[in-house]
Amino acid sequence: MRSEIERLVELDRGHVLVTRIASVLSWDQETYMPVKGIEERAEQLAFLEGLAHEKLTNPEIGSLLHALGSTKANPLGHDSLSPDERAYLRVLRRAYDRETCLPIDLVKDTARTIALSQGAWVEARSKNDFAAFAPWLEKMLSLSRSKAACIDPDKPAYDVLLDLYEPGSTEADIARVFVDLRAELVKLLGKINSKPQVDDAFLHQECPAGRQAAVSRWLMDLLGLDKDRARLDVTAHPFTSTLGSDDVRITTRYVGDFLPSSVFSTIHETGHALYELGIDSPAPFRRSKLSEAASMAMHESQSRLWENMIGRSAGFWKPNLAKLHSLAGPILDGVTLDSFVRAINRVEPSLIRTEADEVTYSLHVILRFEIESDLVSGRLAVKDLPGAWNAKMVELLGVEPPDDSRGCLQDIHWAIGYIGYFPSYALGNLYAAQLWDRLRETLPNAAASLERGDVAGVREWLREKIHRPGSTWLPGELIERATGKDLEAKHFVAYLNEKYARVYGF
Amino acid sequence: MRSEIERLVELDRGHVLVTRIASVLSWDQETYMPVKGIEERAEQLAFLEGLAHEKLTNPEIGSLLHALGSTKANPLGHDSLSPDERAYLRVLRRAYDRETCLPIDLVKDTARTIALSQGAWVEARSKNDFAAFAPWLEKMLSLSRSKAACIDPDKPAYDVLLDLYEPGSTEADIARVFVDLRAELVKLLGKINSKPQVDDAFLHQECPAGRQAAVSRWLMDLLGLDKDRARLDVTAHPFTSTLGSDDVRITTRYVGDFLPSSVFSTIHETGHALYELGIDSPAPFRRSKLSEAASMAMHESQSRLWENMIGRSAGFWKPNLAKLHSLAGPILDGVTLDSFVRAINRVEPSLIRTEADEVTYSLHVILRFEIESDLVSGRLAVKDLPGAWNAKMVELLGVEPPDDSRGCLQDIHWAIGYIGYFPSYALGNLYAAQLWDRLRETLPNAAASLERGDVAGVREWLREKIHRPGSTWLPGELIERATGKDLEAKHFVAYLNEKYARVYGF
Repeated sequence: MRSEIERLVELDRGHVLVTRIASVLSWDQETYMPVKGIEERAEQLAFLEGLAHEKLTNPEIGSLLHALGSTKANPLGHDSLSPDERAYLRVLRRAYDRETCLPIDLVKDTARTIALSQGAWVEARSKNDFAAFAPWLEKMLSLSRSKAACIDPDKPAYDVLLDLYEPGSTEADIARVFVDLRAELVKLLGKINSKPQVDDAFLHQECPAGRQAAVSRWLMDLLGLDKDRARLDVTAHPFTSTLGSDDVRITTRYVGDFLPSSVFSTIHETGHALYELGIDSPAPFRRSKLSEAASMAMHESQSRLWENMIGRSAGFWKPNLAKLHSLAGPILDGVTLDSFVRAINRVEPSLIRTEADEVTYSLHVILRFEIESDLVSGRLAVKDLPGAWNAKMVELLGVEPPDDSRGCLQDIHWAIGYIGYFPSYALGNLYAAQLWDRLRETLPNAAASLERGDVAGVREWLREKIHRPGSTWLPGELIERATGKDLEAKHFVAYLNEKYARVYGF
Repeated sequence: MRSEIERLVELDRGHVLVTRIASVLSWDQETYMPVKGIEERAEQLAFLEGLAHEKLTNPEIGSLLHALGSTKANPLGHDSLSPDERAYLRVLRRAYDRETCLPIDLVKDTARTIALSQGAWVEARSKNDFAAFAPWLEKMLSLSRSKAACIDPDKPAYDVLLDLYEPGSTEADIARVFVDLRAELVKLLGKINSKPQVDDAFLHQECPAGRQAAVSRWLMDLLGLDKDRARLDVTAHPFTSTLGSDDVRITTRYVGDFLPSSVFSTIHETGHALYELGIDSPAPFRRSKLSEAASMAMHESQSRLWENMIGRSAGFWKPNLAKLHSLAGPILDGVTLDSFVRAINRVEPSLIRTEADEVTYSLHVILRFEIESDLVSGRLAVKDLPGAWNAKMVELLGVEPPDDSRGCLQDIHWAIGYIGYFPSYALGNLYAAQLWDRLRETLPNAAASLERGDVAGVREWLREKIHRPGSTWLPGELIERATGKDLEAKHFVAYLNEKYARVYGF
């Protein structure tokens, strides 16, 4: 059976290779491609998507999985296989089954549409022109519904889409978690609102892009992102992309009058990149699907843990604020550690998800969850999206977007077909808080190390517990192995309450 | 037969698409890829190279060419086809025949080796470590010999390689042209050496990269390179690459204490990019091989014409020097048009080909021609290359490289398998001078327009005569159609003599 596994890995690597070639093209499209390159780039990506589909649906993969005893009912295959081999068969069976039900025309049409739709989104967002983007969203929704119908015609389309990003999750499950979370967040917001607002005026002073870039480069170094295996660029919407096992790219954006935007998006994406670069499968499975992250929510737990639990803590900034000051310049003149930490943790309902504080952030996610579920089901028409978005912003956050660029056009996700993805962000917060609690139990010196400027212990703990295994464990298994417990929301709620009691003094 | 042509174009476009995907990856490798990404990138490129090979050697192409009457003896096909169709069959026949004789393993091995060898060259050049690069050059030579033996085992390997870049050229032909050229250049150098040297000390003052970048951006604009279809980046060795019909990338490098390096490499690469973007085949042939440049030497004629005939002329700088001064800053304080033009045309034997003046440039090319011919034939061993290079530098130019980085490691060409390419540079000069003479006969106001800062007339003439037809004509036919004559060296010799008589006053 060894040789059958080896052949499977060989076929799988051929597929992974094509997807990474496509990642190079997508990354280039968002960073450097001249605008008129878009049409031919869309053709190039559609071709690669078709080729990837062909490689993943190669009937030889089906035969080999079958020969190794892996079926839909028992994806792990024969008992005599090693645990790694069985995990690998599970991962590959899932990918193979999901892809074989998609017609090639749908796959190519989707790839082509994504490339064009993304360009349309960038332009619509910059011109505040929702009408120009609407037909693309319509098309993406229609393609997503078709995809869901191919994968499982018996389930509601949105459940099928959710499962793509977080295996096993359903709209009902997530709605249940979100109801509780929303209640807790509202309670906490109430307490915060009863206290005087934190002053963060100094953070809204102008800080030139050049200085912010120096800060971002320093932060990547500080957190231990290997410059020989990663790099930083600038895009409209920050992201992380894996172009190779030793080539992970992150991006950020520089908002002239709000330094924290780049600081925390760089830390966030660095968290994603550390996960990707930390995956270390046994040699026979390198560059296979076992070397991919466990889930989108698990990925988000890593970015959020670095961004919030660490990056917005007093302990982290105690040894680092002086250096930040020297790089960021005059805007931090005379700012104390205490006022800095309070300012970067200021809670205030606002318009932009990626710049929201930790308390209101999950409300942005809940809004997107409710809206995308309505869009997929058809309960909400695309033309009514701006109105629905703005109404819900008022309802959940008490603020109304003055334009669609800062409203329903702010995120890239729907434009590139990531429908059902948003809930992963909130689940990621829950994973992150639970991991953070466990990490500090296991490493009682973690806090002291951070205050000395040493993040290696934290990084290595995460690498060992979460990064290294890649997809060896399902997300639920992984959190259980790392923390001894199933996922629970209480860690996140407790973390927020404890932290904001300190920040706002209640 | 229309439908057979259409099917041929469809298959051909599939091949072109894969080569352009590979161009995105190669461009990224040279501009932005983290260093450790190299191994996986090499695999990605090898895969694409294999795929491109598969697409170009598709037996259906052979059958269709045959059905349309195109054979090795009569590549143009049936008389009843239109001139464009016949030209297209000739181009495709040549590409198909050349590729079908190459075994797939050789193609993949070459692609993989090029990617690794290029990385090794960058490092060896930066560390002045020829020994580290030697095994890669050995491998590239061996692969090139194998390739030549596959294409035509009856011809000397170097003749086969030369023909890849300039159809029909042989070592004997080129040697004959170079003997005359060398004699004329030596005579001219003698005259120049009898005159006082031009003072260009002001050009060797420090000019920050930021200022040079602004100059390069301005020059691209000035020459009419469309920013929506092109962009500029920085690499060790400037180049132009076509990633799509509307996506052409050029690169430059900023030498802190020598502004002309970036000024003239940017103008040079802009000339290449204008050619690529100016190709405009009839709709049925867009994105096919008819939409590719006629030859490497013809390409070089475009870059050299802009760089030298225009970019180093007094007429061009008369309306533009003030702007250059404002962008480049203090190093041009008090510099007159006359002293500027003399300085950028200073003739002095030097070490680096890409920075050589127009008179000695061709001697650098002759050196490479003689050495690569000896390397391919085995008359020169790789280990003896540095010695042979340095000895020939003394013989031809009277200067000796102090290290290999400024000697035999200076050019990227051999590292990426461009063996037999260098002679195109000298032929490009000859084409350029002949075109320049003809252009001024046809457009008597060209000189006056340039002096008013208007380059559009020149650009459009070149677009019409040279760019637009792509590969419709063989290089020899193209120069004959554009100038009414076969290629002659006398235009270049006359151009140099006339110009340097003015610069040095004899």
